[in-house]
Amino acid sequence: MALTDLAPTRTRTGTVTKRLRLFAGRAHPALADSVAAHLGVRLTPQSAYEFANGEVFVRFAESVRGCDAFVLHATAAPIDQWLLEQLIMVDALKRASAKRITVVMPCYPYARQDHKHRGREPVTARLVADLVRTAGADRVMTVDLHAAQIQGFFDGPVDHLLAHTLLADHIQPHYRGRDITVVAPDAGRVRLAEKWADHLGGTPIAFLHKTRDPRHPDATTTNRVVGEVTGRLCVVVDDMIDTGHTVADATRALLATGATEVIATATHGVLSHGATARLAACGVGEVVLTDTLPIPEDPHCPQLTVLSIAPLLARAIHEVFDDGSVTSLFDGHA
Amino acid sequence: MALTDLAPTRTRTGTVTKRLRLFAGRAHPALADSVAAHLGVRLTPQSAYEFANGEVFVRFAESVRGCDAFVLHATAAPIDQWLLEQLIMVDALKRASAKRITVVMPCYPYARQDHKHRGREPVTARLVADLVRTAGADRVMTVDLHAAQIQGFFDGPVDHLLAHTLLADHIQPHYRGRDITVVAPDAGRVRLAEKWADHLGGTPIAFLHKTRDPRHPDATTTNRVVGEVTGRLCVVVDDMIDTGHTVADATRALLATGATEVIATATHGVLSHGATARLAACGVGEVVLTDTLPIPEDPHCPQLTVLSIAPLLARAIHEVFDDGSVTSLFDGHA
Amino acid sequence: MALTDLAPTRTRTGTVTKRLRLFAGRAHPALADSVAAHLGVRLTPQSAYEFANGEVFVRFAESVRGCDAFVLHATAAPIDQWLLEQLIMVDALKRASAKRITVVMPCYPYARQDHKHRGREPVTARLVADLVRTAGADRVMTVDLHAAQIQGFFDGPVDHLLAHTLLADHIQPHYRGRDITVVAPDAGRVRLAEKWADHLGGTPIAFLHKTRDPRHPDATTTNRVVGEVTGRLCVVVDDMIDTGHTVADATRALLATGATEVIATATHGVLSHGATARLAACGVGEVVLTDTLPIPEDPHCPQLTVLSIAPLLARAIHEVFDDGSVTSLFDGHA
Amino acid sequence: MALTDLAPTRTRTGTVTKRLRLFAGRAHPALADSVAAHLGVRLTPQSAYEFANGEVFVRFAESVRGCDAFVLHATAAPIDQWLLEQLIMVDALKRASAKRITVVMPCYPYARQDHKHRGREPVTARLVADLVRTAGADRVMTVDLHAAQIQGFFDGPVDHLLAHTLLADHIQPHYRGRDITVVAPDAGRVRLAEKWADHLGGTPIAFLHKTRDPRHPDATTTNRVVGEVTGRLCVVVDDMIDTGHTVADATRALLATGATEVIATATHGVLSHGATARLAACGVGEVVLTDTLPIPEDPHCPQLTVLSIAPLLARAIHEVFDDGSVTSLFDGHA
Amino acid sequence: MALTDLAPTRTRTGTVTKRLRLFAGRAHPALADSVAAHLGVRLTPQSAYEFANGEVFVRFAESVRGCDAFVLHATAAPIDQWLLEQLIMVDALKRASAKRITVVMPCYPYARQDHKHRGREPVTARLVADLVRTAGADRVMTVDLHAAQIQGFFDGPVDHLLAHTLLADHIQPHYRGRDITVVAPDAGRVRLAEKWADHLGGTPIAFLHKTRDPRHPDATTTNRVVGEVTGRLCVVVDDMIDTGHTVADATRALLATGATEVIATATHGVLSHGATARLAACGVGEVVLTDTLPIPEDPHCPQLTVLSIAPLLARAIHEVFDDGSVTSLFDGHA
Amino acid sequence: MALTDLAPTRTRTGTVTKRLRLFAGRAHPALADSVAAHLGVRLTPQSAYEFANGEVFVRFAESVRGCDAFVLHATAAPIDQWLLEQLIMVDALKRASAKRITVVMPCYPYARQDHKHRGREPVTARLVADLVRTAGADRVMTVDLHAAQIQGFFDGPVDHLLAHTLLADHIQPHYRGRDITVVAPDAGRVRLAEKWADHLGGTPIAFLHKTRDPRHPDATTTNRVVGEVTGRLCVVVDDMIDTGHTVADATRALLATGATEVIATATHGVLSHGATARLAACGVGEVVLTDTLPIPEDPHCPQLTVLSIAPLLARAIHEVFDDGSVTSLFDGHA
Repeated sequence: MALTDLAPTRTRTGTVTKRLRLFAGRAHPALADSVAAHLGVRLTPQSAYEFANGEVFVRFAESVRGCDAFVLHATAAPIDQWLLEQLIMVDALKRASAKRITVVMPCYPYARQDHKHRGREPVTARLVADLVRTAGADRVMTVDLHAAQIQGFFDGPVDHLLAHTLLADHIQPHYRGRDITVVAPDAGRVRLAEKWADHLGGTPIAFLHKTRDPRHPDATTTNRVVGEVTGRLCVVVDDMIDTGHTVADATRALLATGATEVIATATHGVLSHGATARLAACGVGEVVLTDTLPIPEDPHCPQLTVLSIAPLLARAIHEVFDDGSVTSLFDGHA
Repeated sequence: MALTDLAPTRTRTGTVTKRLRLFAGRAHPALADSVAAHLGVRLTPQSAYEFANGEVFVRFAESVRGCDAFVLHATAAPIDQWLLEQLIMVDALKRASAKRITVVMPCYPYARQDHKHRGREPVTARLVADLVRTAGADRVMTVDLHAAQIQGFFDGPVDHLLAHTLLADHIQPHYRGRDITVVAPDAGRVRLAEKWADHLGGTPIAFLHKTRDPRHPDATTTNRVVGEVTGRLCVVVDDMIDTGHTVADATRALLATGATEVIATATHGVLSHGATARLAACGVGEVVLTDTLPIPEDPHCPQLTVLSIAPLLARAIHEVFDDGSVTSLFDGHA
Repeated sequence: MALTDLAPTRTRTGTVTKRLRLFAGRAHPALADSVAAHLGVRLTPQSAYEFANGEVFVRFAESVRGCDAFVLHATAAPIDQWLLEQLIMVDALKRASAKRITVVMPCYPYARQDHKHRGREPVTARLVADLVRTAGADRVMTVDLHAAQIQGFFDGPVDHLLAHTLLADHIQPHYRGRDITVVAPDAGRVRLAEKWADHLGGTPIAFLHKTRDPRHPDATTTNRVVGEVTGRLCVVVDDMIDTGHTVADATRALLATGATEVIATATHGVLSHGATARLAACGVGEVVLTDTLPIPEDPHCPQLTVLSIAPLLARAIHEVFDDGSVTSLFDGHA
Repeated sequence: MALTDLAPTRTRTGTVTKRLRLFAGRAHPALADSVAAHLGVRLTPQSAYEFANGEVFVRFAESVRGCDAFVLHATAAPIDQWLLEQLIMVDALKRASAKRITVVMPCYPYARQDHKHRGREPVTARLVADLVRTAGADRVMTVDLHAAQIQGFFDGPVDHLLAHTLLADHIQPHYRGRDITVVAPDAGRVRLAEKWADHLGGTPIAFLHKTRDPRHPDATTTNRVVGEVTGRLCVVVDDMIDTGHTVADATRALLATGATEVIATATHGVLSHGATARLAACGVGEVVLTDTLPIPEDPHCPQLTVLSIAPLLARAIHEVFDDGSVTSLFDGHA
Repeated sequence: MALTDLAPTRTRTGTVTKRLRLFAGRAHPALADSVAAHLGVRLTPQSAYEFANGEVFVRFAESVRGCDAFVLHATAAPIDQWLLEQLIMVDALKRASAKRITVVMPCYPYARQDHKHRGREPVTARLVADLVRTAGADRVMTVDLHAAQIQGFFDGPVDHLLAHTLLADHIQPHYRGRDITVVAPDAGRVRLAEKWADHLGGTPIAFLHKTRDPRHPDATTTNRVVGEVTGRLCVVVDDMIDTGHTVADATRALLATGATEVIATATHGVLSHGATARLAACGVGEVVLTDTLPIPEDPHCPQLTVLSIAPLLARAIHEVFDDGSVTSLFDGHA
Repeated sequence: MALTDLAPTRTRTGTVTKRLRLFAGRAHPALADSVAAHLGVRLTPQSAYEFANGEVFVRFAESVRGCDAFVLHATAAPIDQWLLEQLIMVDALKRASAKRITVVMPCYPYARQDHKHRGREPVTARLVADLVRTAGADRVMTVDLHAAQIQGFFDGPVDHLLAHTLLADHIQPHYRGRDITVVAPDAGRVRLAEKWADHLGGTPIAFLHKTRDPRHPDATTTNRVVGEVTGRLCVVVDDMIDTGHTVADATRALLATGATEVIATATHGVLSHGATARLAACGVGEVVLTDTLPIPEDPHCPQLTVLSIAPLLARAIHEVFDDGSVTSLFDGHA
């Protein structure tokens, strides 16, 4: 380049343009490809691998200077490695002069450690927010937080997307005309059940009360059904299905109490430790999840339905890039 | 002082001693005096007043250099003025070289704005934590947070004290032998009800499901009782009684559904806007509160019982000062 | 929105545009409307109210993503509530992805507590700057700071507007041909008086020396006039009129010393605690203020003249939005 | 050291002791030695020199781990080098695990750039406070700030010592029985003059009004004396004497207006650019300074009196180390 | 506890004592036990495990309030999980009011990513320092950093221990009387070789120059020996042995160039991917490491000698706790 | 300006434009002019001078609001004054609302103090990075850091430019056909020598081993040549020539060992303390530098060749302003 080619007016002033760039970690390539396709962009190529001792390395193959960067990563197992990989990508983007960095965590890691359950525990969900900030992220986008308060853990904008419309729009046509009770599998999800009941037009709700026998406090807890479920279709709603124990226990308790059928739904399918086999065997009629986390290709669980979260993520990324409204995607919520 | 009086050894080295100092804002002098008495200390004298235009001014009358400062303030109405007064006290302590500053907020202000309920809202509970930090506080002590996640809003140690043992220890002997159902007045308190039920030895629980008529979505909601309450003593548990509408509505719904008696309990008695009259008239048998906030001297509500939170605060302050264990005060919780 | 409608080129790159949005707290709607009108914009609609216990709530009714936000609030009484409301608005804007946030405080709150007058006092003016920064503000705009050093309390750009040209341009034509002495009502305003004297073409200045009788040190101070005032029109200049005592005392002392007439001027009219009656009765000929703070509609003070600060604020906001020069509005100052 | 020699109880617990350590930069060794002598400590030995290219290097010769460090430096010319040296000392102390670091700046550098006098200027006095904080200082100690607001520039405790008692205690016995007028040499020092007048028992005050001829605005300003000086001893009070022009001009104007004698006093003697010759020739009777900055050994100015600031600094350092009261050294001020 | 039992003097003042507490992650229990034994303390008991989805959880079993916490963790594989575990431990300690937290990382993770080797790379070693700081650590202790500059990545004290005396003290008696050349296995270690040569009394040094055939730039590099090695015992010195390729290649090149024997030494034994087999087969005479990282119990490498780093860590922790001198452990270095 | 002239659409929305502005301190005007010329911009005019006591003052003569500011300064002697001047310029730009601030330090100051060589030393290179950040810089641009790790000292983007292509492109045509050995003058530069050897097509390398006589450890070190130099042209490569001792000693040692000719090259010519005379007399054939620092006009060193760094700086500034790629200027490096 000859410097004399630089027209003075070009070097001195110019119109500011913006470029959206999508980056993805290695945990969930199918989701990354799908989001890219819905956005009409391609993923920014990169080198990413581990050194012999397990240290993660990332280098971007193209200039990212001045771009509006969205860094998508699914924090599946091995969760700490993928979290570090995302932090390292953010660090590299910061040092390479990306203009704005949005971390997209479809399933927020360590969300259940959102407060101290007992003394001398960490609040790891806050720690994660601080690590993300320290690495250089300006913003966070996530789906259906375990507790909405986690929004407040990040010192900056959080786009909190809601998937329950997506899930409900799948369930409603399939079970039209049935007498539905929405069931919270534990006390912490009653508020979520209430939202579902409103969305489904005012159905009753019930929940599973975990009790201990007062004479045998060390014995295992039992689930006491509180609310009307006899002769009804029970829709168990949760944010996450991890080992599947909670859903399986709830299904058995509801069927034992007289429910005619039980289906379950959750946004995040962690599906660890034989969860799919457990679900397949517990008597549940259908389990509806999204793919915020990678779902095993052949899960051996015929009841499983997986909906794609990619269109929702793509629309939200588009709105963020374009200074549109993410709130409007959810009728004022989020 | 003649400089020659300074023995070299005294100026060069010394044993580090610690001094506890208790400071109190002007909102709730009775609580401050009571905590001081239980601790066996006196409040540090100060000047505190408003200028003509309402600006708050504080000056401490004694040196606070190097002390372990506990700044107690009840964020009653006018809540913003008392919050600012507390921040200003912290700023003055920081600049006057206090060694460590613990903000004691018996009732955490703005706790209910702990997440965005809809788009474009603040997360004021996080903002409060940041303001407290910015002013110079090292630590926070508080009682029964509206959501435990608020612990994570503060970037430092939070001593989260629990008052439900205090409340339950009052209720149990008075209502021994009764068939109790613990009732959550809304979906967000079911987890609290579960804790109470465990503490009371395995009682059933119920909750009030707020529903809308699907044909008239704009009409006011009604409370549908979910769980067994007929013929039983209902104990409505909440963290806070503000206008009293929630408790009054719950009481009426429970009595209408067949409860024999309803009592209510909460840690924080905001009691705004005619709350005591509302409680007096709703049919509730007893309302048990603590004095984390100032209770009107003559509340015209014969059902009201107020328990002192001062011994608990004093014990916790003592443990903090003495590097003891606050967790041990709550059997491992908090 | 169908995702297929997203043209790839639109999602990937675009020209960055900017949108000015004006937000206003509830303290001084007349000023907000006037600034909006001068700017040719409308105020962004919002919900803002207190809950029963006094906690302030704010929600914006339209998307603010990516906007250049100017948050105007007059910190009148109740000063702490309005300050918190402004902080809460900033927090909500930050979390809703506003691009840049400028806090417009026409009268900077707690400006008089800009240093420790004695030991163990706060420096509340610095605390305010830090609170504003913590909430998320990028910039501050204000008018006639009590001390110019307060600019340095904020870690970012401060646009410090000057109103004395506005005030002087009102006074000069009304009192042309008179022998004017500019008077500082206390030692801290002599520098301001010097600026006025320069602006008025080299008039003499005088000031009121507050003295104590050495034999009765506890007695109230008296004002000793230093400088030439006999037979002259005295223009008392201050940044703020709060209770009116300072101006009233100065007026009486000047008339007693031989001044033919006294007029007073200040930028900020706090006018607390019967100030207008005090001014009306003290013998002052005219009192000229701006409306950085709300002035009572019927102040019962015929000498009062109020000038609008809105055009100046609107011009400065325009320059900030447009990357123009605020300094140029003041001949190189500010 | 054999590890087996470590008694378990010794490694596990112990009494916390504190050690005061005094460090000094190279600008003003006489002051450092004097402060050390008054404290009864010795200066911590160090290597400090410049490399060939002017970069400053510092290394401490003894362990500083856990000490209470006071870093004394006089920011004389070359002011930037000494400022950097002080920052580098603080950095080395921070990295070497000093427990607490107090920067002692007897004459705060860049204090006169405490606000923007015109647009697009720095606020260097705030920048200095931030640099000191960034390097790792916990606290600042300084004497007679140019503006008290500079206290608020530092985000932490500032011990602001006052020297005017020291100066006044020298002047009072020497000029007992004289009719004194305290004179502010410009508008910015009238408040200081008022403090002096109070301290001297209620003397009158005057000040020099810098004016421009309105017909020749570009001509040099003249000093118009405002207040009563004829036949009186004028004590010109300032915080700093730099070039001496201000004091010399004031002296000439006061003598021309009828003063019988003029003496001048200031805390900080910058004495740059032939200041001492200028003072010697202007007609002033005495010039009283402290040694916060190094005073030339043979200043060729017989009127000069220099008082030692070391006892005051030593007493304040002692109080800070011992968690005593600095405020009490100044009757509640500072 | 009866509050009346609190003697006023005890609650108000007291002597500050310090308690050392040692915490250890799960990666390298043998080292933790050994350090504890050398210190004469026991490890603080804790619960630490992964949830089903891999999230790490930690809770301490005893009060840690006010303690001087040393958190030891070896960042072996899976390196990201152990790093997160250490951060989570620090977060829990911070929130549980530990007084001071020192992170002990015997082998600093990601040390080799200490700068951008090419554009758009992260600087992960700096990121790690920031993550550690964000989690709440006050200090870092580590051994033989890959680059000494990493000390500067942490904004606080870093105790940088040196192991080469330990290694050399093992080698010297075993190879006394031999003609030694110290060899740097690549250009980055020549400075380390120089230190060893000094320590061994002035031996020659050599290094392996990695070259590319200019005609085949893509071909693999070859090692050209620079320096005198014929007929000599070559001691290859490195900070870390990871895959063993570097040492194995160097050994072969040195033997091929005429060295009589080759031994290798390094502080950190990563030993990934068949490293021990590679070392066993390359012809090296002895490989001397420390146990900053866990060494396989049966490494199938008869040449391997492992020295314990625990005494050095214990001594340094003792000095830090006791405000002694760590520098003195290394003759002024570190 | 009449406010009615503001078209509503203009005040409300607009296209964001960017303006590049180049600012320069006073240390090296020739370089600043040259960079400006290559960029086709002019330097922003400013006032910059010292007050009588040496305090630096800067004011910009034109509005800088919203600009993309590049602040170029050469940290030549007096190095601390120029560093402070650069910090003060950044502070003024931050407060005057510059949009983005890039500090351009062609020769990074204090780069050699990049770690603690012994205990209780500062890490001044990190301190400088923090001071620059604190003053308000968003980015740093620099050339050939003494250690690449210094990139990681700054918490933000660092554009690290490389000059060795520039230097090599000068040397290669002049010495074509000669048998070259690249020589590192000490152990720390061997890696640099390796890069040069690669760039020159695979030449051998050598280095100077600084040794001490083990029997006289206090005696001065001698340089032992390691590698093949007899009969060859030695190119001594360094990042910086300061006093010239290193190059002069290396030259003499190489010639004594049999080199036919020695030339030296470095990016930064500090040239302090008679360096040019030393170079002129040592026998070196040519010394090639760039002008990152000002070179004396008549250095009395006929061997000196100075290449301009301005084109490289201008191209990099252009790429940064234009969101182009700086990495691409260096074939993927930097």
